[in-house]
Amino acid sequence: MRILDLETPAVVIDRARAKANLVRAQAYADEHGLKLRPHIKTHKLPMFARLQCDLGAVGITCQKIGEAEVMADAGISDIFIPYNILGAGKLDRLLALHRRITISVTADSAVTVAGYAAHFTDPDHPLPVLIECDTGAERCGVQTVEEVVTLAKEIDAAPGLRFEGLMTYPPRGKLAEVEEWLSEAIAALEKNGLRANTVSSGGSPDFYEAGSVKSATEHRPGTYIYSDRMQVAFGHGTLEDCAFTVLATVVSRPTENRAVIDAGSKALAADLAPVPGHGHIVEYPDAVITGLSEEHGVIDLSGSAKKPEIGEKVRIIPNHVCPVSNLYDEVNLADGDIVTETVPVAARGRLT
Amino acid sequence: MRILDLETPAVVIDRARAKANLVRAQAYADEHGLKLRPHIKTHKLPMFARLQCDLGAVGITCQKIGEAEVMADAGISDIFIPYNILGAGKLDRLLALHRRITISVTADSAVTVAGYAAHFTDPDHPLPVLIECDTGAERCGVQTVEEVVTLAKEIDAAPGLRFEGLMTYPPRGKLAEVEEWLSEAIAALEKNGLRANTVSSGGSPDFYEAGSVKSATEHRPGTYIYSDRMQVAFGHGTLEDCAFTVLATVVSRPTENRAVIDAGSKALAADLAPVPGHGHIVEYPDAVITGLSEEHGVIDLSGSAKKPEIGEKVRIIPNHVCPVSNLYDEVNLADGDIVTETVPVAARGRLT
Repeated sequence: MRILDLETPAVVIDRARAKANLVRAQAYADEHGLKLRPHIKTHKLPMFARLQCDLGAVGITCQKIGEAEVMADAGISDIFIPYNILGAGKLDRLLALHRRITISVTADSAVTVAGYAAHFTDPDHPLPVLIECDTGAERCGVQTVEEVVTLAKEIDAAPGLRFEGLMTYPPRGKLAEVEEWLSEAIAALEKNGLRANTVSSGGSPDFYEAGSVKSATEHRPGTYIYSDRMQVAFGHGTLEDCAFTVLATVVSRPTENRAVIDAGSKALAADLAPVPGHGHIVEYPDAVITGLSEEHGVIDLSGSAKKPEIGEKVRIIPNHVCPVSNLYDEVNLADGDIVTETVPVAARGRLT
Repeated sequence: MRILDLETPAVVIDRARAKANLVRAQAYADEHGLKLRPHIKTHKLPMFARLQCDLGAVGITCQKIGEAEVMADAGISDIFIPYNILGAGKLDRLLALHRRITISVTADSAVTVAGYAAHFTDPDHPLPVLIECDTGAERCGVQTVEEVVTLAKEIDAAPGLRFEGLMTYPPRGKLAEVEEWLSEAIAALEKNGLRANTVSSGGSPDFYEAGSVKSATEHRPGTYIYSDRMQVAFGHGTLEDCAFTVLATVVSRPTENRAVIDAGSKALAADLAPVPGHGHIVEYPDAVITGLSEEHGVIDLSGSAKKPEIGEKVRIIPNHVCPVSNLYDEVNLADGDIVTETVPVAARGRLT
């Protein structure tokens, strides 16, 4: 089937571009002695998780136990969940995964560590726990090196846990600060007889600078597989590297300079990028998607000499691709203009 | 099961509040001689579509053929799709629906009308077509009364189509302009021997002013069933009328004034409201959700004297509830603090 024969809106993934993005990143990681542990939140597809591992990734990163369950079922054997897992229900599921595959998690509080320690009690098969460090992104994570040492000791003291190292979600464009934070934490741990085997950093925007974080042993890029307008705005590749587009149909041309497409926030997600508009229209690069309601995208054509006709199909590079993956039950893989495969987004909607 | 025993994030719908919202709206519509044709995009649940019809709605509104197929399968027999349906694949599905139930659509261009006319050819069972009018919302719709007349004549001339009337998605807070637009169009149609049997307006924000649009015969509110922060900001009811909340767990308290919950944009959607923050936390009304990444919501507690503990569950009223419904495979219905039923969101993710 040709791409243009798909019912719209639909996701089309350029297989060659996606693979090229993976290969390039793996080569960079290899060159800099970094392990790659891709975050599957972007694609949510077992086939791409397997491809990432086949290309050299040491394992994958999932954000939810439900995602890890899907990926374990698909044969992925090493999964890191960089999240505080809390509550008996989730800890039970984590334990079940721990019995099947290699799984590791994070903690940034004594409460989280206590939950792990109560559920994981086998000294012969301890749960690896990394401490999340807030190196400037101001999300989760301990705030000081002293807290790292305290928490590492608590993990180390629990028979069923193993202190594995440090994890951070780094602030964009501030890798020198990240390196300073991590290296100080590692030194403080060493002074206390503790060793960080794994130091995991992440994020696609600064991926090709990741080698400057010398303390990190692994990196967790997610968006790099598809890239999107936001990544390009952050300096990660070009629009020609973007592998993921939404095919949409022009359903209305109410005025000379307005077009409306059948892709709104339910098809493109409402995330904003540091560039104007709600997506890049490949065929009409000078047109601007000025507004999204759920089922309509409104396009300003005043800057575009070419104007699309009603019924015409266009391809859109989303602002932020990860939440878009989560909106589709299935995606189409294409070689050139031909759809070669349609696959379910197996880890879509795994909220818990 | 108690609400607080749900795994998070999870949607909890207060059944009594939802029903009260429906009853109040139906009473208003009855009082003002308006038919109600609720938009199911908000709930995407057959059970609530049936309840809306049982309470007096003349039928429902869907935005996608896929949604209409789900609702027809669930026994709903009168569905309006206020959208330009284009392309052979969708027109085939529309025809199949037309053979099963009462279905009507819109057009705002000769291209759309020509597509309907080519697919629907039975003069004994014509497809009712309404003309979409842009009364100021600047989305789809014809721009002038003259275009209405021209398009109505084209519909009227097609043996398999029936000119049914006018449809608009009105701009918020400008109902006088909407009424002026519609009444002029109706008069122009009458001069040309054409009659608008149905004049369909919509939107929840101005619903309780809808009686002022005297030309309208029916109204298509969607969000009114659950309401949300955006509706409340627009003057539609209060936070106490909001029936839909997302239950989340506090997973981190990195600093005195920061909490992080396990509900990010994948659980709350990224839509903004005309009030600060990404949702209203019922238990901590003075706390502000300042940022959402996909799996984290970051909360500023500096204005909140009470501070939540790690592991504590909180309930959040979303900014815009409709896209949130689309993120969950199932939702929980509660009477008071007790979950009485968990139902699949049957029309979720119907993109085509």
